[in-house]
Amino acid sequence: MSPSSTSSSVQENCPDYQRVTISGDYCAGITLDDYDQAAKNLFKALLLREKYSKLAYHRFCRTTSKFLRSAQNTTWSEEDEVLPDMCPCPEAGEDPYCMDNIPKDLNYKLKMKDGIVYVYDNEEALKQNQPHDLPYPDLETFAVELSHVLAMTADGPTKTYCHRRLNFLSSKFNLHEMLNEMAELKELKRVPHRDFYNVRKVDTHIHAAACMSQKHLLTFIQKTYQTDAERVVLEKDGQRMTLKKVFQHLNKDPYDLTVDSLDVHAGRQTFHRFDKFNAKYNPVGASELREIFLKTDNVVNGEYFACIIKEVARGLEESKYQHVEPRLSIYGRSPDEWYSLSKWFIDHKLYSPNMRWMIQVPRIYDIFKLKKLIPNFAKMLENIFLPLFEATVNPQKHKELHVFLKYVSGFDSVDDESKHSDHMLSFRSPKPEQWTSVENPPYSYYIFHMYANIIVLNNLRKECGLNTFQFRPHCGEAGSLTHLVSAFLTADNISHGLNLRKSPVLQYLYYLAQVPIAMSPLSNNGLFLEYSKSPLKDFLHKGLCVSLSTDDPMLFHYTKEPLMEEYAIAAQLWKFSTCDVCEIARNSVLQSGFSHQDKMHFLGENYLKDGPEGNDIRKTNVAQVRMAYRHETLCNELNVGEPAEKLLL
Amino acid sequence: MSPSSTSSSVQENCPDYQRVTISGDYCAGITLDDYDQAAKNLFKALLLREKYSKLAYHRFCRTTSKFLRSAQNTTWSEEDEVLPDMCPCPEAGEDPYCMDNIPKDLNYKLKMKDGIVYVYDNEEALKQNQPHDLPYPDLETFAVELSHVLAMTADGPTKTYCHRRLNFLSSKFNLHEMLNEMAELKELKRVPHRDFYNVRKVDTHIHAAACMSQKHLLTFIQKTYQTDAERVVLEKDGQRMTLKKVFQHLNKDPYDLTVDSLDVHAGRQTFHRFDKFNAKYNPVGASELREIFLKTDNVVNGEYFACIIKEVARGLEESKYQHVEPRLSIYGRSPDEWYSLSKWFIDHKLYSPNMRWMIQVPRIYDIFKLKKLIPNFAKMLENIFLPLFEATVNPQKHKELHVFLKYVSGFDSVDDESKHSDHMLSFRSPKPEQWTSVENPPYSYYIFHMYANIIVLNNLRKECGLNTFQFRPHCGEAGSLTHLVSAFLTADNISHGLNLRKSPVLQYLYYLAQVPIAMSPLSNNGLFLEYSKSPLKDFLHKGLCVSLSTDDPMLFHYTKEPLMEEYAIAAQLWKFSTCDVCEIARNSVLQSGFSHQDKMHFLGENYLKDGPEGNDIRKTNVAQVRMAYRHETLCNELNVGEPAEKLLL
Repeated sequence: MSPSSTSSSVQENCPDYQRVTISGDYCAGITLDDYDQAAKNLFKALLLREKYSKLAYHRFCRTTSKFLRSAQNTTWSEEDEVLPDMCPCPEAGEDPYCMDNIPKDLNYKLKMKDGIVYVYDNEEALKQNQPHDLPYPDLETFAVELSHVLAMTADGPTKTYCHRRLNFLSSKFNLHEMLNEMAELKELKRVPHRDFYNVRKVDTHIHAAACMSQKHLLTFIQKTYQTDAERVVLEKDGQRMTLKKVFQHLNKDPYDLTVDSLDVHAGRQTFHRFDKFNAKYNPVGASELREIFLKTDNVVNGEYFACIIKEVARGLEESKYQHVEPRLSIYGRSPDEWYSLSKWFIDHKLYSPNMRWMIQVPRIYDIFKLKKLIPNFAKMLENIFLPLFEATVNPQKHKELHVFLKYVSGFDSVDDESKHSDHMLSFRSPKPEQWTSVENPPYSYYIFHMYANIIVLNNLRKECGLNTFQFRPHCGEAGSLTHLVSAFLTADNISHGLNLRKSPVLQYLYYLAQVPIAMSPLSNNGLFLEYSKSPLKDFLHKGLCVSLSTDDPMLFHYTKEPLMEEYAIAAQLWKFSTCDVCEIARNSVLQSGFSHQDKMHFLGENYLKDGPEGNDIRKTNVAQVRMAYRHETLCNELNVGEPAEKLLL
Repeated sequence: MSPSSTSSSVQENCPDYQRVTISGDYCAGITLDDYDQAAKNLFKALLLREKYSKLAYHRFCRTTSKFLRSAQNTTWSEEDEVLPDMCPCPEAGEDPYCMDNIPKDLNYKLKMKDGIVYVYDNEEALKQNQPHDLPYPDLETFAVELSHVLAMTADGPTKTYCHRRLNFLSSKFNLHEMLNEMAELKELKRVPHRDFYNVRKVDTHIHAAACMSQKHLLTFIQKTYQTDAERVVLEKDGQRMTLKKVFQHLNKDPYDLTVDSLDVHAGRQTFHRFDKFNAKYNPVGASELREIFLKTDNVVNGEYFACIIKEVARGLEESKYQHVEPRLSIYGRSPDEWYSLSKWFIDHKLYSPNMRWMIQVPRIYDIFKLKKLIPNFAKMLENIFLPLFEATVNPQKHKELHVFLKYVSGFDSVDDESKHSDHMLSFRSPKPEQWTSVENPPYSYYIFHMYANIIVLNNLRKECGLNTFQFRPHCGEAGSLTHLVSAFLTADNISHGLNLRKSPVLQYLYYLAQVPIAMSPLSNNGLFLEYSKSPLKDFLHKGLCVSLSTDDPMLFHYTKEPLMEEYAIAAQLWKFSTCDVCEIARNSVLQSGFSHQDKMHFLGENYLKDGPEGNDIRKTNVAQVRMAYRHETLCNELNVGEPAEKLLL
């Protein structure tokens, strides 16, 4: 595991480069006791994430896993590795909506208990309370493990240690850059036919309802009015309204509409105002137009929304190298949401090879409860997850949902993280069935219950030979550090992660475990953090696995290619080299929900391997020198912690 | 001229807004003597610029002119105003290259004296040294007036006064913004059919040889190779080479070429290295490809370069609202350059309604002299200007140049401003005929002689009923403050102006005279000044007449729409409101070389008027509140200086 041992196998496809080696005492500036304590803590936290990841069929960094095995004096083997299972693209000529060959119904019985769906082989097993053998997690264990990791983020010696290692990583990269910048560039110049423009990039964090530009939405509305003015598009207070009537009611002439009057772009007014930001989703400040044009389930059966998304998809297919994973909402108000969503997907033929779908669940139990739509939190969870289990065990009964789920990457948890919660998750927290107050559960409570259902579901689906899902919540955009701890355990990867800059321990843990972070500096600039203060450059330099995503092109971007705009601005302002931006693009593919086959096609056959071996420069345009540096640096960081840890075991 | 008197006439089309009024002593914080001295200096400088502008048919700010007249106790009249004369677009169906109706030859005689072309009615007048009645400026007067303005930029009381006024302007705008932001936005939302995307924008500063994106150039080279591999495209050391042979010689396969190997993008390596920056104009680091693809006068007669530019033009015409003024080089090595350039323009049919042309003259006399291509500086000037006078007095003899000049906006002076010159311009400086040393003349010496020839030429052309030219040099990108003083007198508008941040007096003068400044923060970010340190936002806030331009899309930009990228990044990072960006776009049209007819079409019929009266919000999308604020603020600044000045007269 030492850099010298790995570099030999690499020699062949990695040019020699100038290495920075530090000799002498590895824990200078910190006492041995403190060092031991820090190493022990970090080791424990990594083991925990590994456990949680394996249960959920999430990827866990191979290098880190190898280190953990080695520290435990066991051997790592590829067979023990748990990997997600994503549906490959339909082959050319194959119908993506094909409903032949759907597996037989298993007629398993399903029942929610403590907010988690339990699976029973039959009625008898259900009666005897003998669930199918799947990992059913419990809130108590999670609460205890969460508090362990939380405690270590506040532990003095661990903080000092991580802070020093992060500073070291920063300085080391600066040296690497100075010494090897030209060597990296030279490698890239030699790569035939591949540059920043034709490496694959996935916009892994983008909301479907804002995935078009403001100008695109405007043009679409005007175009639609020309043909559909007399069509009934809205039902309001029992009255059926045509598009013409809607605009009369709004006192607007669609022809005169401008991006100014549309008013969906974030401005100075939205900074630190999530409420105003959310209101921007309403064109012309009117919820009517959002209802008509940006919803899947409305009077026109989501036809307009589907058309806009298909236009976005055609643009991506033309660009060839850009991909997106738009987020669609499932609220948990009613169990029908899934059927209506999958019907929308199938009816409007929304499949695109450049798209995979993410499901976002807004954390708005309190609103539903207040409106008396649901009796308790468990009901919301049931509405969200039970249909998925149903479609998994009885796919013949839920063909549309079965097909749609093939193209779903996973789940996101969304809302304003800066909202404070009075409740603090603990092992004494009420179970979802008992959560009947109008108060909203805290972030970690949501996260655990989504994660818990996803792992049961993934294990069940794996058994049935179906694709698994990733859990990829919004996390660390604002709010408490607990969010980042919860996601460290439960998430495959996260969106935002801004608050990692506030905790050296968590930042270092996200580094060691290489938890991917999809960052959106332009969105942050409009909402929570000025562009110049974004930690993205710092994170990238240190070696955290960061990527770039747009979040909401409709609200933040100006040009016809929002993802390119995001990359361009980052490259311009942070003076990123081609190697930097291509590394970011590679990270975005890795963390996406595209299939193993797609990833082999996009990144090279060995993409699962760590270090230069796993990199095909002809596809990624990332220099092998950079890959070797990242790999050796990570190995070095893990080994710095190792000897002390070995003593402890 | 007081705000109250102007506001009444405006009331009709300008909504009421919250005004900031300061009462009490207007020159607080500065002694009356100092104040008098400052006011006297500024007044004198403004009068000088007005004189120079009128001579050259440059625009001079009407409000400032009115103030000067009023301070001199005379009256301003529209008839006295001198305006440039630009050719309108050919009408629909009209041939832009039509050579009918070209005026008759006048057969005037021409002779260069002291580096300036003199015009004589006939051989007799030439013999008797009786030149045609035109304003022929002299270097001595310029040197003296330049040193006057230069001295006042270093004058203590004037510096203090200007510094205070600029601070005041900044703070006042901040207040205005806080108080009226929503009022401005409200106005814009009400404007039908007009938003940031469809207001006219002119990219007034862009070099033709880098006006395409790096990706565009790459694709063009690859496309050309597919059809033209066997075509002779280069003559090198007497050998004629096909495109195939050129690539063999470079050891490159065009198919494998990437933007990385093309290597025309500015990177970290170019910062503060104008030499490395210039080398980026050579694709693949090879001057051969520059010669073949980016030159007008080569073995393929500039066909490839013309094709690329026409592709750029088609893109602009499709966008409809974007315009550019690309710069083509005239070097002054030989008098044939103009004929070859205009032939290129006509042969390849390069006219586009979205383009006007600028001629850039690189300041590289020293190189030509060293290579013994010219005997003295006067010869270089003669090669540049004599053909223009020829074409003006004898258009029948120079039909192609005559036609091409219709579409030329004016002249630019370009090169690395940070290069130091040993010579200091003074009334004792040698005349161009005597400038025979290999040393390069200083910036001001170049500027004066270009300006001098342009004013003679413009007056002559005006007499002949032909269009005039603007002088729009690169200025203040780096180097001495003298550059900005020279241009303050001689330029219609300038590119860059970064160094204005170093001189409060000059900055305030550029404000009072409303000298337009085309800024390119992305270019600066790659070359001279980090984006975050760009003074653009500060200048805009104070009310300087700034616009955005791209400079070199091939070197700096990433997306397919470089001008939109430039606007988008500025808007994102500086949190510009729609009104801010539309004000910038309006400024860009004002300073461009598009015709009076075009400007009326783009900005409204009254665009020549100052203040809200001159603004047609339906075309510009600039709030009347903003226009009123700018106008009243400028009037106020001018009047602050007025009373003391009146005493002096």
